[in-house]
Amino acid sequence: MTTKYGARNQIQATVGAIKTGDVMSQVKLEAIGTVELSSVMTTDSLKDLDLKPGDKVSVIVKAIHVLVVKE
Amino acid sequence: MTTKYGARNQIQATVGAIKTGDVMSQVKLEAIGTVELSSVMTTDSLKDLDLKPGDKVSVIVKAIHVLVVKE
Amino acid sequence: MTTKYGARNQIQATVGAIKTGDVMSQVKLEAIGTVELSSVMTTDSLKDLDLKPGDKVSVIVKAIHVLVVKE
Amino acid sequence: MTTKYGARNQIQATVGAIKTGDVMSQVKLEAIGTVELSSVMTTDSLKDLDLKPGDKVSVIVKAIHVLVVKE
Amino acid sequence: MTTKYGARNQIQATVGAIKTGDVMSQVKLEAIGTVELSSVMTTDSLKDLDLKPGDKVSVIVKAIHVLVVKE
Amino acid sequence: MTTKYGARNQIQATVGAIKTGDVMSQVKLEAIGTVELSSVMTTDSLKDLDLKPGDKVSVIVKAIHVLVVKE
Repeated sequence: MTTKYGARNQIQATVGAIKTGDVMSQVKLEAIGTVELSSVMTTDSLKDLDLKPGDKVSVIVKAIHVLVVKE
Repeated sequence: MTTKYGARNQIQATVGAIKTGDVMSQVKLEAIGTVELSSVMTTDSLKDLDLKPGDKVSVIVKAIHVLVVKE
Repeated sequence: MTTKYGARNQIQATVGAIKTGDVMSQVKLEAIGTVELSSVMTTDSLKDLDLKPGDKVSVIVKAIHVLVVKE
Repeated sequence: MTTKYGARNQIQATVGAIKTGDVMSQVKLEAIGTVELSSVMTTDSLKDLDLKPGDKVSVIVKAIHVLVVKE
Repeated sequence: MTTKYGARNQIQATVGAIKTGDVMSQVKLEAIGTVELSSVMTTDSLKDLDLKPGDKVSVIVKAIHVLVVKE
Repeated sequence: MTTKYGARNQIQATVGAIKTGDVMSQVKLEAIGTVELSSVMTTDSLKDLDLKPGDKVSVIVKAIHVLVVKE
């Protein structure tokens, strides 16, 4: 059975550059097409995930965190 | 001068279906490639934005709200 | 292989009462011990998850969303 | 009169290990039962709270920040 | 002893109009000066807070949720 | 045409002190009246915004991220 997430936004992505900080770390993510994303998490979570560039991951974002701007 | 956002994730998208609720509303967004996104905002904000299907918008998500999952 | 989440807070819980709204829905969750939690998600996500009282779920919260208060 | 929070999730916890970073800091929290939580806040907020291991605190999480996952 | 919050943004405000929805509710808040704010919470939390227009409340926002835009 | 944001809280502010960290940075913001705010963003976003003390910015906060507390 596949894992199901209670969130509207679920994107398949590939891990890119990783910047490891003292408490927080940042991970670049290449999604389908030309969309480039970034995630910030604790450095502890980064270690638990054991992420390496090239890893395939799922990117989950709750719809409430998505801001729409009309210019 | 262009507007600059203090957020890592900035995606151009086209407004799709809109579901208007009593307090909160939901907007589907078609991003570049095949990525489909959703945003939830107050119905008041939806009215202020005056969104219609086909409108071009920017989608802004702070990196801290992006969850990475490795299956 | 087990699913790994880029978030510090991961709690096993059992689904309790579900309140389905027009756009947003609310799910009560009984965690280990006597901790009772609630989640709000879109009604669309609720349907995708196909949650029923008694279901076993994982509750994921990024550490940045946890507010500490000292009274 | 007791303080009331506009959030569904309110857990009593004891402060555990604290990791102080340049801008952000991380605090481990032992909640009732065996639930272990983490909070990330600015190092400025950490100093204002004057947290020490063993301190009793309230942990507040808005329901919208709680992600439900069904594996 | 006063309550201390692990969040950078703490504003004193007066409750204004309240819009009660099925699952989520919206509260207008008049802060010091001419700043007008809004909060969305579950209707359950609204009932627990027992908010009425004119009530004095504290408005807490973690710094990570504040988006800076430069036009 | 002016930029429109899908968020209830939009405050004009002036940039104050900036603290640049390894991954995350913190910006103080002086809003109208006596309200002082803080934002945390990635150091990458800080560089993209090219913020300097005295800059005029817009501060955007979605209503769902605003916690109301009644003491």
